[in-house]
Amino acid sequence: MEDPFRTIEWKGDHIRLLDQTLLPGREEYVAIRNVDQMCDAIQRLVVRGAPAIGVAAAMGIALGALNASETNREAFNSEFDEVCSRIAATRPTAVNLFWAVNRMRKLSQARADIDLTQLKQLLIREAVAMEKEDRALCERIGAMGKDLIEDGDTVLTHCNAGGLATAGYGTALGVIRAAFEAGKRISVVSDETRPLNQGARITSWELMKLGIPVTLIPDNTAGALMQRGRIQKVIVGADRIAADGDAANKIGTYSVAVLAKYHGIPFYVAAPLSTIDMSIPSGDGIPIEERDPKEVTHISGVRIAPDGVDALNIAFDVTPHKLIAGIVTEWGVASDPFEETFAKYFLRKSEETAS
Amino acid sequence: MEDPFRTIEWKGDHIRLLDQTLLPGREEYVAIRNVDQMCDAIQRLVVRGAPAIGVAAAMGIALGALNASETNREAFNSEFDEVCSRIAATRPTAVNLFWAVNRMRKLSQARADIDLTQLKQLLIREAVAMEKEDRALCERIGAMGKDLIEDGDTVLTHCNAGGLATAGYGTALGVIRAAFEAGKRISVVSDETRPLNQGARITSWELMKLGIPVTLIPDNTAGALMQRGRIQKVIVGADRIAADGDAANKIGTYSVAVLAKYHGIPFYVAAPLSTIDMSIPSGDGIPIEERDPKEVTHISGVRIAPDGVDALNIAFDVTPHKLIAGIVTEWGVASDPFEETFAKYFLRKSEETAS
Repeated sequence: MEDPFRTIEWKGDHIRLLDQTLLPGREEYVAIRNVDQMCDAIQRLVVRGAPAIGVAAAMGIALGALNASETNREAFNSEFDEVCSRIAATRPTAVNLFWAVNRMRKLSQARADIDLTQLKQLLIREAVAMEKEDRALCERIGAMGKDLIEDGDTVLTHCNAGGLATAGYGTALGVIRAAFEAGKRISVVSDETRPLNQGARITSWELMKLGIPVTLIPDNTAGALMQRGRIQKVIVGADRIAADGDAANKIGTYSVAVLAKYHGIPFYVAAPLSTIDMSIPSGDGIPIEERDPKEVTHISGVRIAPDGVDALNIAFDVTPHKLIAGIVTEWGVASDPFEETFAKYFLRKSEETAS
Repeated sequence: MEDPFRTIEWKGDHIRLLDQTLLPGREEYVAIRNVDQMCDAIQRLVVRGAPAIGVAAAMGIALGALNASETNREAFNSEFDEVCSRIAATRPTAVNLFWAVNRMRKLSQARADIDLTQLKQLLIREAVAMEKEDRALCERIGAMGKDLIEDGDTVLTHCNAGGLATAGYGTALGVIRAAFEAGKRISVVSDETRPLNQGARITSWELMKLGIPVTLIPDNTAGALMQRGRIQKVIVGADRIAADGDAANKIGTYSVAVLAKYHGIPFYVAAPLSTIDMSIPSGDGIPIEERDPKEVTHISGVRIAPDGVDALNIAFDVTPHKLIAGIVTEWGVASDPFEETFAKYFLRKSEETAS
C-alpha cells in the first residue's frame, strides 16, 4: 500500500513538513528554510512523534550546516555545535532527538579529513539516509509485531505512533498496518488524546486514509470498552524507553496500561532501538516535558475553562515495564527481562552495521 | 458560606435555570415556561446532574399541571400523565428523574379528594419542597462524608457533582465543601471530563467561586498523578446506584476507580438515597445513555476530528461496588455489603417520614 502522505522530506535547499497542527482540517505542507524555523516547528508540534523528531533534527542540522556562514573549519565547527545544541534544546523527552543530534555531531567530528563543501554534502546525505532508514525500520517493526494481532481483534491505541510520527509507516500503527495488510480483519479504537487530540486529529485521519476501520473515543472511555470486552489488544509508541523497559509515552498511556493489566489485555509498545536509552536504568530517570497549561484550558483557540484556573499539562507519563507484555523493535519483540534482550538487539545491530 | 449561584428556582409562573451549557464563559439564567422547554433543557444539559434533574423534572411537571388546558379531573389526569411520560423520556440513566416523576404522579393520584386548583397548588408546593429537601440532603451528605477527607488531602473528582448538579451544595463537592468549611486544608484535582468538559467548565468554576483550591487536568492525567502520590482520595457523584452498590456515573468514572484501586487510593461515591435504585440488583441492569457522536468530534462547535469518522459517545459507565470504599448518603457512609446498609437507610428514612 502506498503511503497516503509524506511526513518529512529533504528538498535540496529546504525541508518540507506536513503541518500536523492543521490536521485534519487542512493538509498543508510548510517549507523549513533555516534552523530557527525547524526549532519552532518541533516545539509547536508541526512535526511530532519521537522517530519523526529524530529525522527532523538531523535534517535541521544538515540545513544549518548547509547555510553556515563560517568558511574555515574551526569556526564552522563551533557554528555547527551551536546549531546542534539549539536543535537538542527544543524538547526534552523524546530520546530520538538526542540520538539524531549525536549521530550528526559524531559524523562531523569524524571527518576532519574532508573540506567543508564535502562535509556539508555528507551531512545532508546522512540526514536523508536517516529518513529512509526510519521508514524501513518501521516496516521491520510492523513485520516483527504483526503476529501479535489476531484476526478479529479490536486494537486500542493512544496518541499517534503512525506514519506521521515517523518518516512513514509508523511504529504502533505500523504493526496494525502490517497486520491489516496481511489480511487480518481488525479494527482500531483511537483515544482522542487530550490536550492536543493527536488521536482524534491525526491517528483517525491516518487510519481512514489507509482504509483501516477506526472508532474515535474520549480518553476516559477506554476503561468502559475494556470492561465490555470490546478491546483485545493495546499497542502504543514510545518517546523514550529506559534500559529496564520502562517506557515514556504521551500522557494517558500509563492509565491505559493499568486498565489493560486490570482487564487481562496485553499491552504492547512499538519503537525502534533509537528510542531505547540504555544510559537510563529505569523510568524514574526520564525527563518529562510540561507544556503550557493553555493547551488544556483552550481547544483550537476556544477557551473551555474559567479564566485564571490552574491547570496541569504534563505531556508524558512513564509506564513501568511490569505492565508491558512486549516491546516491538526492528530486531524482534522484547519481553521481561527487557535489559538483556535490548543488549542482544543492540549487539545484532552493531554487527549488521559492521558487516 | 452562601451559595454563589442558584441552580434551579420556582418563580410562580416559570422556572429559572442557570444555563450550564454557557458556563464558564457566561453566567446566564433562562426562564422555562412550559414542558417542552423543560424537556429540551434536560436533554441539552442546560440542567444536569442526577439530583438537579430530579428537581427539574418535578418542577417541569408542576408547570405542566399549572398550564394544563383540561378542566375536568379525568381529562386533567390524562393530560398530567402525558406530561409525566414526556418528562420521564428525556434521559435514561439518572434514576432521580424517575423517582421525581413517580413522586409527583403518586401525589396527584392520592388526592382525588381535592379540586384541580388545590391539586395544582399542591403539586407546585411538592416540587418546591423537593428543591429545598435536595439542598438540605446535600448538606447532610456533606456532614456525613467530611471526615473521610483529611487535612492536607488532595481529592480527585470527575465530572460535576456540585451545587450545579443538585439544588445546591452538591454531593461529592458537598463532601469536599463540608471538609473545607470544617477548616481542613485541602485541594481538589478536577478531571476535565470529556466530551462535554463538565469538570473544566463547571466544577472548576464552582470551586473557584467557593475559594477551594482546584487544579484542572485532562482525564488521561489522573493515573500519572496517582503514580506520583499526588492524590489521596477520590470522590464522585452517581446517576444511579444498584442495590448491590454498583454505581453508574459519568463516563470515565470506572477508569478512575480502577486506577484508584491499583494505587491503593480510597474511592468514594456521594449520592442521596433517591439515586439508589433497589429495583435493580446490580449494575448490569442500569440503562446507559449513548449521546450524539458530534459531542466527541466537536468542541464548542469546532470540529476536532476528520469528517465522517466513527465516534462513540457513551455517556456513563458502571463502577462495580468492589471498587468503592464507601457510598456517602444523607443517612451515613455505606460500605460492602451495600444492600444491607441501603435497606437500613431506607427503613430509617421511612420511619422519619412517618413520624
